[in-house]
Amino acid sequence: MNDKEFLENIKNGKMTIDEGLAYLKDFNFKDIDIAKLDFQRKNRRGFPETIFCQGKEDFALVEIFKAFAERNDSVIGTRATKDQYELVKREIPQAKYDPTGRIISLEYESLPQIGNIAICTGGTADLFVAEEAALTAEFFGSKVSRFYDVGVSGLHRMLNKIDEIKKANVIIAIAGMEGALATVLAGLVDKPIIAVPTSVGYGASFNGISALLTMLSTCAEGISVVNIDNGYGAAYAACQINKLIEEK
Amino acid sequence: MNDKEFLENIKNGKMTIDEGLAYLKDFNFKDIDIAKLDFQRKNRRGFPETIFCQGKEDFALVEIFKAFAERNDSVIGTRATKDQYELVKREIPQAKYDPTGRIISLEYESLPQIGNIAICTGGTADLFVAEEAALTAEFFGSKVSRFYDVGVSGLHRMLNKIDEIKKANVIIAIAGMEGALATVLAGLVDKPIIAVPTSVGYGASFNGISALLTMLSTCAEGISVVNIDNGYGAAYAACQINKLIEEK
Amino acid sequence: MNDKEFLENIKNGKMTIDEGLAYLKDFNFKDIDIAKLDFQRKNRRGFPETIFCQGKEDFALVEIFKAFAERNDSVIGTRATKDQYELVKREIPQAKYDPTGRIISLEYESLPQIGNIAICTGGTADLFVAEEAALTAEFFGSKVSRFYDVGVSGLHRMLNKIDEIKKANVIIAIAGMEGALATVLAGLVDKPIIAVPTSVGYGASFNGISALLTMLSTCAEGISVVNIDNGYGAAYAACQINKLIEEK
Amino acid sequence: MNDKEFLENIKNGKMTIDEGLAYLKDFNFKDIDIAKLDFQRKNRRGFPETIFCQGKEDFALVEIFKAFAERNDSVIGTRATKDQYELVKREIPQAKYDPTGRIISLEYESLPQIGNIAICTGGTADLFVAEEAALTAEFFGSKVSRFYDVGVSGLHRMLNKIDEIKKANVIIAIAGMEGALATVLAGLVDKPIIAVPTSVGYGASFNGISALLTMLSTCAEGISVVNIDNGYGAAYAACQINKLIEEK
Amino acid sequence: MNDKEFLENIKNGKMTIDEGLAYLKDFNFKDIDIAKLDFQRKNRRGFPETIFCQGKEDFALVEIFKAFAERNDSVIGTRATKDQYELVKREIPQAKYDPTGRIISLEYESLPQIGNIAICTGGTADLFVAEEAALTAEFFGSKVSRFYDVGVSGLHRMLNKIDEIKKANVIIAIAGMEGALATVLAGLVDKPIIAVPTSVGYGASFNGISALLTMLSTCAEGISVVNIDNGYGAAYAACQINKLIEEK
Amino acid sequence: MNDKEFLENIKNGKMTIDEGLAYLKDFNFKDIDIAKLDFQRKNRRGFPETIFCQGKEDFALVEIFKAFAERNDSVIGTRATKDQYELVKREIPQAKYDPTGRIISLEYESLPQIGNIAICTGGTADLFVAEEAALTAEFFGSKVSRFYDVGVSGLHRMLNKIDEIKKANVIIAIAGMEGALATVLAGLVDKPIIAVPTSVGYGASFNGISALLTMLSTCAEGISVVNIDNGYGAAYAACQINKLIEEK
Amino acid sequence: MNDKEFLENIKNGKMTIDEGLAYLKDFNFKDIDIAKLDFQRKNRRGFPETIFCQGKEDFALVEIFKAFAERNDSVIGTRATKDQYELVKREIPQAKYDPTGRIISLEYESLPQIGNIAICTGGTADLFVAEEAALTAEFFGSKVSRFYDVGVSGLHRMLNKIDEIKKANVIIAIAGMEGALATVLAGLVDKPIIAVPTSVGYGASFNGISALLTMLSTCAEGISVVNIDNGYGAAYAACQINKLIEEK
Amino acid sequence: MNDKEFLENIKNGKMTIDEGLAYLKDFNFKDIDIAKLDFQRKNRRGFPETIFCQGKEDFALVEIFKAFAERNDSVIGTRATKDQYELVKREIPQAKYDPTGRIISLEYESLPQIGNIAICTGGTADLFVAEEAALTAEFFGSKVSRFYDVGVSGLHRMLNKIDEIKKANVIIAIAGMEGALATVLAGLVDKPIIAVPTSVGYGASFNGISALLTMLSTCAEGISVVNIDNGYGAAYAACQINKLIEEK
Repeated sequence: MNDKEFLENIKNGKMTIDEGLAYLKDFNFKDIDIAKLDFQRKNRRGFPETIFCQGKEDFALVEIFKAFAERNDSVIGTRATKDQYELVKREIPQAKYDPTGRIISLEYESLPQIGNIAICTGGTADLFVAEEAALTAEFFGSKVSRFYDVGVSGLHRMLNKIDEIKKANVIIAIAGMEGALATVLAGLVDKPIIAVPTSVGYGASFNGISALLTMLSTCAEGISVVNIDNGYGAAYAACQINKLIEEK
Repeated sequence: MNDKEFLENIKNGKMTIDEGLAYLKDFNFKDIDIAKLDFQRKNRRGFPETIFCQGKEDFALVEIFKAFAERNDSVIGTRATKDQYELVKREIPQAKYDPTGRIISLEYESLPQIGNIAICTGGTADLFVAEEAALTAEFFGSKVSRFYDVGVSGLHRMLNKIDEIKKANVIIAIAGMEGALATVLAGLVDKPIIAVPTSVGYGASFNGISALLTMLSTCAEGISVVNIDNGYGAAYAACQINKLIEEK
Repeated sequence: MNDKEFLENIKNGKMTIDEGLAYLKDFNFKDIDIAKLDFQRKNRRGFPETIFCQGKEDFALVEIFKAFAERNDSVIGTRATKDQYELVKREIPQAKYDPTGRIISLEYESLPQIGNIAICTGGTADLFVAEEAALTAEFFGSKVSRFYDVGVSGLHRMLNKIDEIKKANVIIAIAGMEGALATVLAGLVDKPIIAVPTSVGYGASFNGISALLTMLSTCAEGISVVNIDNGYGAAYAACQINKLIEEK
Repeated sequence: MNDKEFLENIKNGKMTIDEGLAYLKDFNFKDIDIAKLDFQRKNRRGFPETIFCQGKEDFALVEIFKAFAERNDSVIGTRATKDQYELVKREIPQAKYDPTGRIISLEYESLPQIGNIAICTGGTADLFVAEEAALTAEFFGSKVSRFYDVGVSGLHRMLNKIDEIKKANVIIAIAGMEGALATVLAGLVDKPIIAVPTSVGYGASFNGISALLTMLSTCAEGISVVNIDNGYGAAYAACQINKLIEEK
Repeated sequence: MNDKEFLENIKNGKMTIDEGLAYLKDFNFKDIDIAKLDFQRKNRRGFPETIFCQGKEDFALVEIFKAFAERNDSVIGTRATKDQYELVKREIPQAKYDPTGRIISLEYESLPQIGNIAICTGGTADLFVAEEAALTAEFFGSKVSRFYDVGVSGLHRMLNKIDEIKKANVIIAIAGMEGALATVLAGLVDKPIIAVPTSVGYGASFNGISALLTMLSTCAEGISVVNIDNGYGAAYAACQINKLIEEK
Repeated sequence: MNDKEFLENIKNGKMTIDEGLAYLKDFNFKDIDIAKLDFQRKNRRGFPETIFCQGKEDFALVEIFKAFAERNDSVIGTRATKDQYELVKREIPQAKYDPTGRIISLEYESLPQIGNIAICTGGTADLFVAEEAALTAEFFGSKVSRFYDVGVSGLHRMLNKIDEIKKANVIIAIAGMEGALATVLAGLVDKPIIAVPTSVGYGASFNGISALLTMLSTCAEGISVVNIDNGYGAAYAACQINKLIEEK
Repeated sequence: MNDKEFLENIKNGKMTIDEGLAYLKDFNFKDIDIAKLDFQRKNRRGFPETIFCQGKEDFALVEIFKAFAERNDSVIGTRATKDQYELVKREIPQAKYDPTGRIISLEYESLPQIGNIAICTGGTADLFVAEEAALTAEFFGSKVSRFYDVGVSGLHRMLNKIDEIKKANVIIAIAGMEGALATVLAGLVDKPIIAVPTSVGYGASFNGISALLTMLSTCAEGISVVNIDNGYGAAYAACQINKLIEEK
Repeated sequence: MNDKEFLENIKNGKMTIDEGLAYLKDFNFKDIDIAKLDFQRKNRRGFPETIFCQGKEDFALVEIFKAFAERNDSVIGTRATKDQYELVKREIPQAKYDPTGRIISLEYESLPQIGNIAICTGGTADLFVAEEAALTAEFFGSKVSRFYDVGVSGLHRMLNKIDEIKKANVIIAIAGMEGALATVLAGLVDKPIIAVPTSVGYGASFNGISALLTMLSTCAEGISVVNIDNGYGAAYAACQINKLIEEK
């Protein structure tokens, strides 16, 4: 069924308004050959589509941002270099860039920030991933509390903050090297933890594999894990949970 | 500070009742030499301690179960063999065993089951992991909906059930081999997904590594992952989320 | 038997013309010390030799292209950098270059394009591999249909195109990250699928290993796999099948 | 849309017969709780569903076979142990078993065998995988030619058979250890090759990883690869190609 | 130089007594063909040789134990099965066996136990490795304090014992799964820690690799690591340090 | 309990001086948002905190060094690039840099150097790691003896130095490639050895994995291992042991 | 060309006797369907074919041995179990078996043993691999000197034997765990060394990977490596070298 | 024993001239702190020491070359960059450099070239490794025959050269990607083969791991393997064998 047939079906009543809405919710996207843009994503999944910038050809990246800008749709692009941002900005002046979180953002109206997501890191070098998570969560409408450099080799730093951390609906635990942060946190709180291994470290850290295995093998319950350095994905999952709790 | 000093402090008012409760919440456990049993866990973390049976020496396993039985504390033991169950049952006749989920349970009073957790599997061989998850979630007081064998190689099976799956507060997606179930589900729903890779498969499945990497590398948002075959851990994380949503 | 003996055998009738043709089909090549060029390949294998440019020393690469140019033999060079192309072009002005597919081509006469090969990608970043496949297939005389960015996290994009995809004789499915594209496609069509994992992704994608394992471990039948990023190899295998079907 | 609505739509003409057939082709399956059986698979994909026996619980396996037997639908079960066969046979006396190919078969009517698939192995120990492939291909209606123990360490054995091998529409090349069989074959023929690495070997063969990497990394064109020991999958892919060529 | 010449050299003064002692310290061993027994090891390295029982042929194992028994030299054999012990006991009735530590011991005179080595484990299933370490350390003359099941998922159990642990000269930290025990301990004490990863766990624990990488990648200083499950090696290294401190 | 309450407790006697000292020893740190600086570390762990420079953002790194400089606290920063040093030096002129050991140092008063740590390397290319270890050990107050390029492929070089090496309290053995240095040394001495695998080598050395596995798998006792290239960590562990022996 | 044509060519002089011999040398084998037996191997490669017993089906194994026995051709079968030997012996009473080397041998006439191959092992547990090598070398006509348990953790044992080892034409160095034997030997001798990693060890030995990487990464020259536990292959290569030296 | 004592022992006859020579052969080297240069290597091992240039600090590399130049000792440096060569040349004008083989050479007198080593490569991109091997072998006094680009995907190229290859005393087989060259060669010749995997390829070639595993797992006898890209090591081992055969 093509678009024309769809509209005729609605017009002559073969399809009710409700059936039509369901159709649009699941099947609509914009085809620009090199990409199929999914503007109904927010309707279907609760949050809008995000642009994964890494590895995209320049002309393709700019085309995709322009398609959102033309509709005045807010969107963020993750893992973006400064050079990619310059290209986008040339076409879309209102685009913004955060170099720590490596995020290009087009924000036509800000969402109110609800609930509470705690973002904890093991060390200072995890900052890049932490800010990717924090900016994403704020863009998607969650309030964020930051607790950086509370790693387990100096336990008193974490214990000093634990009462504040416990107040969150959901916790994001970010750590590289041996990645034990999530395990120790999980033993102290009663909230779900999304663990993010980072590629911080060297040698047997194997670019994040060590922290990843730690988090998967943990003996503490209540931890689930996302990809290495995937601050964005952790924020998305945390926002889903935060929103479900707040909106109930 | 030892236990005696603790009580004297309470008695002579150096410590208030509230301070005393906080102390007990964080520091109390029973020391039986080979193990330190954590009876305050439910108070601190929301759910009681669970016994990981695999690899424990027989005498140790029985001692641990007896310590719970003496207090009439409900508890489950995961990854238990039938032989381990026989040993426990000889000492504690009310112990029960589920051979598919491989769980020994002591249940003195059942919790009411609230909310809704959907458990989906890619194939029939994932049954062992799925039932570990389902029985755990029910023990911890969550209602469970089962959707087994809805894998992506026959998409219509999943699409046929998708409206029911969407009704859950949180979804557990269990799959071996290439493990694409979670990704496809995530594209269709707006609920958090806990993905469980299973060791089902052979050759390049590498005992679950293939499915694990698939779930971590997914391009679909809203998925977090637990260890290979870890139905228990997925259920725990799902119960935390389910409970937070329901009890808000 | 050396070349001189070979010709004497033909002349004095010890070897028939048919035996002579068979000899040439299997044993002839041009020896330029650093390489042995296989001009009879098309005769023996159905398609001409291709030049793998990556890692070749500059002088060697130019020598090899010149040997083809001197015979007016069409040829392509894969995984070529722009710098390599400039070197070749200086000696052979009619050489062409496609920067997305990274292919240098010498084309003295174009083959007619027969049959139908569908090339599908999971995302926009797979474009480089997809165009390597598409250009190779067209050079080898197959018609190509492109379906880019139809990945499984937005299933409706694929379902929207599935009827067109089904019309092909053979399908090339290209995807990075979790690489589930081939599995979902295979469940919907009755044509052979050549799957190409790509190095798109980060962290647990491990430069394409995640997608590779997914494709090898798939529970869906009718999928065979080539090396990571090997668009060329997928196109070659697809052209063999496409040609056998069309020329039957 | 549930089944009742579907039939009402057909009856009152809201859905045409053609639309109804398309619906059935994509969406029908039998739900027996632990499994969703896909009887329309042959209609949709060209070949009927196969039962992957490994790791299935006994009662589940028997239930699944019985569902096929009740409809007089032919089916095979792969990677089956002799014990599994005994269980099935007790309920379904006409079930047969091949211990080398490890296949349980229910065959109510045999398909005519068309075309030609050549199955080559590197050594005698690859026999188990080769017979899984051969029996599968014959069940799916393809003629099979067997060339066993023609590995590359004794090249004359392969060269002696090469003219017969070339007559096939498609070649399955099965080898363990270093797995070079497919590469050498590909240099001599102009037909597509499906390569199957086997777990034959020890030490650095790593249960088939060595042969798998060899086949994926090959410098010879026209090879695509399936999972380690996956004779079934290679046969399926080969049958698709063989049938498309013959039925054109 | 053979033994006879050696003694003649000493007798006629060509070699001084000191030169003779140095010779014996470095070069003497008993050659029984299948093994070269190193009775001067204690002289040279501070502790006697130990027998690694795993994988030795039965007749070889018994011969080696007998060679020690004939000299009334105390010795232990590690990673010994109960069957190996029975064989040894038949020839050497005073041999003893500990099934948890899997150690066969011949002890003609016990060493006094000096200093203090703390052995901590993350869980109850690490008991096998912990007792291998404890029995080895006691055999080599060190006093041992045991702290079992003080893992980081229930931090209060470790904090409750930390003052006792700090009293040791050196600490052995034994843990499987995510293996974070050593890191957290190291942040709290000022003594060297020998970390032992164990193969306890499943899935992404990869038989101890997860814990091994954690311990190697740790951000906490003062930790060095031995092989997976190597309780013996950890005890040896700890005894060297303990003895150097005590004997200074 | 916040800082103000803490001081009031001390003032009004609710907390004794001793309790106050314990509190400060375990819980005090300086919170500068992106980092929590642990100035009490020396008190608690015996040695001051060290700054891991790799991967830190420029502004963060400078802030951290400045916090130490303001207190006139000596500190070193490891794995520092020359560029990082220039940034630090601009703010803190007395900062020094060693390009071989890649260490930035702020040293307000030098510690006396006690005891003896022998640092041995297998080859000349291990120099970078060796000097990181040597400079760290000297900063922490240990005397260091250097034995470079005494690898096992020319055994006489090691045997020539062995008597001097034996005089140390503890030995650091640094080697890449096959990493056998520690094993051979261990067979000749009666002192603890801290082994450091280095990333020197190529191919099957896998950036230090080969040397790491060698050192973990060693059949010689008395060796414990730190991370690949972790000269700093080896020096820290060696200093703990050296100090305990000397200060007993 | 088939066999009949071959003979006619010889008879009518189209092919000379010398051409006929060359033909037979390269192309002759016995085809028994499941295997192609290569009786001309000794003529072409210098040593007769060997039977790799592991993984062969029983009937196939017996058929292959019988084919050799019928021609009175000596042959050995490697990696044979005792059960396989019993099956062979029932049909061929003169077959012999060595349980340490796991070799079945049919020996109709013994070759004279020439030259000298030194076989060294690191420990007693390497005995199985060492005897596979020793028996193979003796069967192929080389003299063997055994030096067992001369590993590097007790260097004096190796130094004591080094003058005898140096007398060999070629040295086989067999070791598990860290596998440093070959490196240390290579530094002391001027003969080629064939290194064999063994699967002896546990944990980070990874079934021989540790020793394999050590031997490949060695900084000592003159070492080449065969597969893990491949005593047979090492002996074959050593016999080639030994024979070339002796027969020059 | 120091040098002075050594000379006194010789002078006063405590040590005979023969004992003195043996002492010098095993124990002499030049200590320049950062390196211990082994000028007696040729005496002890048959070939002089070689300088591994990769990863050495500039000042260290120049010092080492100067030490050889001062003695007029010929030497080569492998894996050298052009920059390293420029540094060396500034101090030692007679130094030469080959950019393909990446070798710096100081050659004061050339050795006569004896025997015959065949160097075969699978493709043109293996040239770098092949020339490292060829130049090394020629420097060490062996005659070299080059056979480049004779890989197995075009078998006729190898068969065309096989009679010349067979004339060598020993064969070096160099190949990347699937690395099957050595296996096919081994089936055709009766000479020892040293196989060198190269890092040529991409994706599942894993920088040479695929070729390495192929060569280790080979079913063809007479192959031993060196490290990935280790042309130098293969040449060294081949020269040992070539020299032993020629000098017998």
